[in-house]
Amino acid sequence: MILEKIQRENDIKKLSPEELGLLAEEIRQFLIEKISRTGGHLASNLGVVELTMALHLVFSLPEDKLIWDVGHQAYTHKLLTGRRAGFDALRKYGGMSGFPKRKESKCDAFDTGHSSTSISAGLGYVAARDILGASNSVVSIIGDGAMTGGMAYEALNNASRLKSNFIIILNDNNMSISENVGGMSKYLNGLRTAEAYTGLKKGVEDTLLKIPVQGEKIVNKVKKTKSGIKQLLVPGMLFEDMGITYLGPIDGHDVKSLCRTLHEAKRVNHAVLIHVLTKKGKGYTPAEENPARFHGTGPFDVATGESNGGSSQKDSYSDVFSKVLCDIAGQDERVTAITAAMADGTGLSRFQKYFPERFFDVGIAEEHALTFAAGLAAGGMKPVVAVYSSFLQRAYDQTIHDICLQKLPVFLAVDRAGLVGSDGETHQGLFDLSFLSTIPNMTIMSPKNRWEMADMVRFAVDFEYPIALRYPRGEAYGGLKNFRTPVVYGKSEVIYEEEDIVILFVGHMASLAEEVRRKLKDTGYCCSLVNSRFIKPLDTKMLERMAADHTLFVTIEENVLTGGYGEQVLSHVSRAHLGVHVLNIGISDDYVEHGSVDVLRHEVGLDCESITKKVITEYISCFKRENIK
Amino acid sequence: MILEKIQRENDIKKLSPEELGLLAEEIRQFLIEKISRTGGHLASNLGVVELTMALHLVFSLPEDKLIWDVGHQAYTHKLLTGRRAGFDALRKYGGMSGFPKRKESKCDAFDTGHSSTSISAGLGYVAARDILGASNSVVSIIGDGAMTGGMAYEALNNASRLKSNFIIILNDNNMSISENVGGMSKYLNGLRTAEAYTGLKKGVEDTLLKIPVQGEKIVNKVKKTKSGIKQLLVPGMLFEDMGITYLGPIDGHDVKSLCRTLHEAKRVNHAVLIHVLTKKGKGYTPAEENPARFHGTGPFDVATGESNGGSSQKDSYSDVFSKVLCDIAGQDERVTAITAAMADGTGLSRFQKYFPERFFDVGIAEEHALTFAAGLAAGGMKPVVAVYSSFLQRAYDQTIHDICLQKLPVFLAVDRAGLVGSDGETHQGLFDLSFLSTIPNMTIMSPKNRWEMADMVRFAVDFEYPIALRYPRGEAYGGLKNFRTPVVYGKSEVIYEEEDIVILFVGHMASLAEEVRRKLKDTGYCCSLVNSRFIKPLDTKMLERMAADHTLFVTIEENVLTGGYGEQVLSHVSRAHLGVHVLNIGISDDYVEHGSVDVLRHEVGLDCESITKKVITEYISCFKRENIK
Repeated sequence: MILEKIQRENDIKKLSPEELGLLAEEIRQFLIEKISRTGGHLASNLGVVELTMALHLVFSLPEDKLIWDVGHQAYTHKLLTGRRAGFDALRKYGGMSGFPKRKESKCDAFDTGHSSTSISAGLGYVAARDILGASNSVVSIIGDGAMTGGMAYEALNNASRLKSNFIIILNDNNMSISENVGGMSKYLNGLRTAEAYTGLKKGVEDTLLKIPVQGEKIVNKVKKTKSGIKQLLVPGMLFEDMGITYLGPIDGHDVKSLCRTLHEAKRVNHAVLIHVLTKKGKGYTPAEENPARFHGTGPFDVATGESNGGSSQKDSYSDVFSKVLCDIAGQDERVTAITAAMADGTGLSRFQKYFPERFFDVGIAEEHALTFAAGLAAGGMKPVVAVYSSFLQRAYDQTIHDICLQKLPVFLAVDRAGLVGSDGETHQGLFDLSFLSTIPNMTIMSPKNRWEMADMVRFAVDFEYPIALRYPRGEAYGGLKNFRTPVVYGKSEVIYEEEDIVILFVGHMASLAEEVRRKLKDTGYCCSLVNSRFIKPLDTKMLERMAADHTLFVTIEENVLTGGYGEQVLSHVSRAHLGVHVLNIGISDDYVEHGSVDVLRHEVGLDCESITKKVITEYISCFKRENIK
Repeated sequence: MILEKIQRENDIKKLSPEELGLLAEEIRQFLIEKISRTGGHLASNLGVVELTMALHLVFSLPEDKLIWDVGHQAYTHKLLTGRRAGFDALRKYGGMSGFPKRKESKCDAFDTGHSSTSISAGLGYVAARDILGASNSVVSIIGDGAMTGGMAYEALNNASRLKSNFIIILNDNNMSISENVGGMSKYLNGLRTAEAYTGLKKGVEDTLLKIPVQGEKIVNKVKKTKSGIKQLLVPGMLFEDMGITYLGPIDGHDVKSLCRTLHEAKRVNHAVLIHVLTKKGKGYTPAEENPARFHGTGPFDVATGESNGGSSQKDSYSDVFSKVLCDIAGQDERVTAITAAMADGTGLSRFQKYFPERFFDVGIAEEHALTFAAGLAAGGMKPVVAVYSSFLQRAYDQTIHDICLQKLPVFLAVDRAGLVGSDGETHQGLFDLSFLSTIPNMTIMSPKNRWEMADMVRFAVDFEYPIALRYPRGEAYGGLKNFRTPVVYGKSEVIYEEEDIVILFVGHMASLAEEVRRKLKDTGYCCSLVNSRFIKPLDTKMLERMAADHTLFVTIEENVLTGGYGEQVLSHVSRAHLGVHVLNIGISDDYVEHGSVDVLRHEVGLDCESITKKVITEYISCFKRENIK
């Protein structure tokens, strides 16, 4: 096996041309086999096997810097830098990350996870190199989907000023996770089409050449000119207009021509963009035919491509959201839905199917998504933006400045809130309760189970001010079915009322909170249970009532503690002199890595045993302190 | 006076062509005279007098929607919609805002303040119109500076898909606040240059036409084609390539030709961009000659353009920052400085002068700025990003995802933190302590006075992890000069130590905290004073020590209470069972409008009298409760 000869970075350079051809095949087999067992990102990785090989053949790591945008396509890069063994525990707790990580290898130049950051980071590396007088290469590899993000454009706009080499690889597979949108995509598509970059150009050239005497002169003149009419014979003028040299399009599965172009690009003394055409899922028929399904996948059967167990038929919170939203939209034409390239993940593809004219996929453009929603609301609509918690961080200012300042009725459906699992640090949704709570005029809700999710979606659509509904990834909780009182603005729901200890939980912490309560009762404690429902505004009346016959308030949330629900409860307890003790349970001040959600909860202390222990310790300590006084 | 005939929107349509000519002149005189007294944005407003008149002549308000990007150029719009009387109290507390405000007039379609939002909001209005079957026009007016922001590009990328009318006015004055940067600016400059859009085009056309027989055929063929070779005869191909019709460039001071083009644009059934050339400061020589100085100005003498009093010669925090940074940079070539189009405001223009090769103005592109800094840090540099607090909100995710996750040593110099005054709601820096505190691996400092500012700048540059230094607009405090112990990581500074009450203040609340303490002492209370210095990490040891002989902790910060310094102090007091009472003073959960900082502080209760009263009430109430127990 040739793959075995690759023990570390740069080993690929020792292979013969014949071995290289076989290597690509072996890498594909390896990735398909491993990912079919562990799950992970498949289609995008199969698409860049040859591109990654070419990069490793032409550049020297770790001196040269490769920056992988988003980063889920770096599996071949990991293989070629000696991390083959890591694939057995890919995306498992304590195992290898599915994204580039500086702490994992010195060949990983920059951590990624969110989209459209690679050109900015690459420009930073270039500036550092130039100031320090070094001569390494810097290469950012960005997908066409990531080109819909504004950051990529901000960076291109700056790249145009460079007076030293910087290579941008535009890995164009004509889709991000699902299909791409917008003018840039159309433009790139134009370049992909043979007619646009060869046929037409050739046609015009030929037409001109047919003209006796002057024809050749014109062609030469045009080729030499620096101006816009170069477009006649040069493709990629949009980039050239921005001051960036365009090379391409190149076949992304031809290692030889990729290497030739990379060598050519190294000689350019400013920013150069290489337009590489790749096929997502290349070499594995099921993934080629359905690249979106194989973008991120669980374990599957290699022969058929069918999912291997684990895929429950039970509704996720996203499913409940999308079904209820479609119900409402059928009766109210003002309901509009917006996603930033996540129609499948958020469940909005259902909405798209039934109400295509009221559905907007804006590309990987969260900032635009939120302000666009604000515009829709100002124009009299009821816009719903479904967005993952960690991506909403991109639009914090737009939420403050464009939505809440004007009190516009935008409904933020904050999906993937809390721990998300194997995507790890960059994708955990652990900040939303805190950053949304800082914003005036914002209302924040979270549902305890599937029925409350449905009720809250209805409540949020009807609500006439900015509102966020946060819910986690995965199956919607089916417990506490008999507790279904109407959702009332700012009001929590008392589930069990006893005395001494009250557990106040946020949303999907419901089942854990029930479990903790049972355990406390089994140990002999009295314990009430309250579903917060609204994180903002706080149900201060409930807190005041509970203070009358409880000694200890325990809050449980899957969010960082700083600025979260628990600290807001504590703040009111202090401000209103309620005289009770407060124990805040949540995520402490650190990033949480990849792993299954269950394992992660245990690691961060969000499990029944840890919490029960903490509650009892705190209760006893309160009791002791009260007695001393 | 013709201006007197304009009592409300659409009145301008009743004027004769002669009157229109005089009106422009009167508006300019009015603006110069008023702003010379109140201060405000002058140069940008003088630049769009005719453009605004043309918009009001062609469109009908409030049915048609005008969306002003950034919004500081909407003064003529305010005049033409009956708000002439408002200019006497422009940007004063309770008076007229310097930006469009929906609550101020139904002719203000969308509130703005931050850059690059108008195309997104406009697209929202367009989608709403189309779904509801209305027929109003939607016009977004965006400056060329705002085109350096990624949001504008995200929106353009989406605009390209429109199948109905949407007008984007690109108000090109070849600068944002100061000069523009990047590829887009260069491209627009190319279009501005006569040669690029007329001469060259004409030249090519002529050359082709000279060819007997085939020449005219080619020209016609080229003009008809949909492809890239249209560039031959059509300017603005970058926009056309994105799927947006380009009209221009047009003289922005010729009302007649502006009206003609606007009527033409109304007939396009998709997105159309009109490239309008204007002169910033037009009609007032001092502003034409120094548009950056007259971008936002205090009161000035109309005859000379000289500033009228008020401009103290004393150093601001920004000055101290920039001087110390330049000192350090002279000795350490790794120090690099980054601004997002705010070189003057942040004081970095000094750095630019001395170290041009290590200075980067990235345009109005905060997201890129932060990730670019992360790349610089990964490449071995010591990057310093100077950014206004309210604009840093744009880069919350980049701080989480690109800087702090990788623990990269980026120094965020957070300027304009706290209340900023007359720019109002969109520009107050009241969230940074909260949103930065949520981020793992972040350190946050704030200086009490000018000397500590200098010490903290040195500390931050030397610090090897992400660090933010937040400081306010305006003169650096010269008090507490004798308190200058070295800055130690995570350690606060005890200024006066007594017992009973301790005031813990953040940064520039120093003088207010001193005043409150004096008043408390005059009233007979014992009061300690502690400068928090570090907001993150919290100095828990100091809190524990203070708990020993104090009953009440009072925190004072110019930041929202939610998730701020005070709530973090409270959280530790509760977690560590310190058994003291905590009173958090800060900004309550609401936006703060425009007005002088002193007036605003009084309004939000951040003045000596309000705080002293609250402290005494709280202290007495603590005392009573303790006695009851």
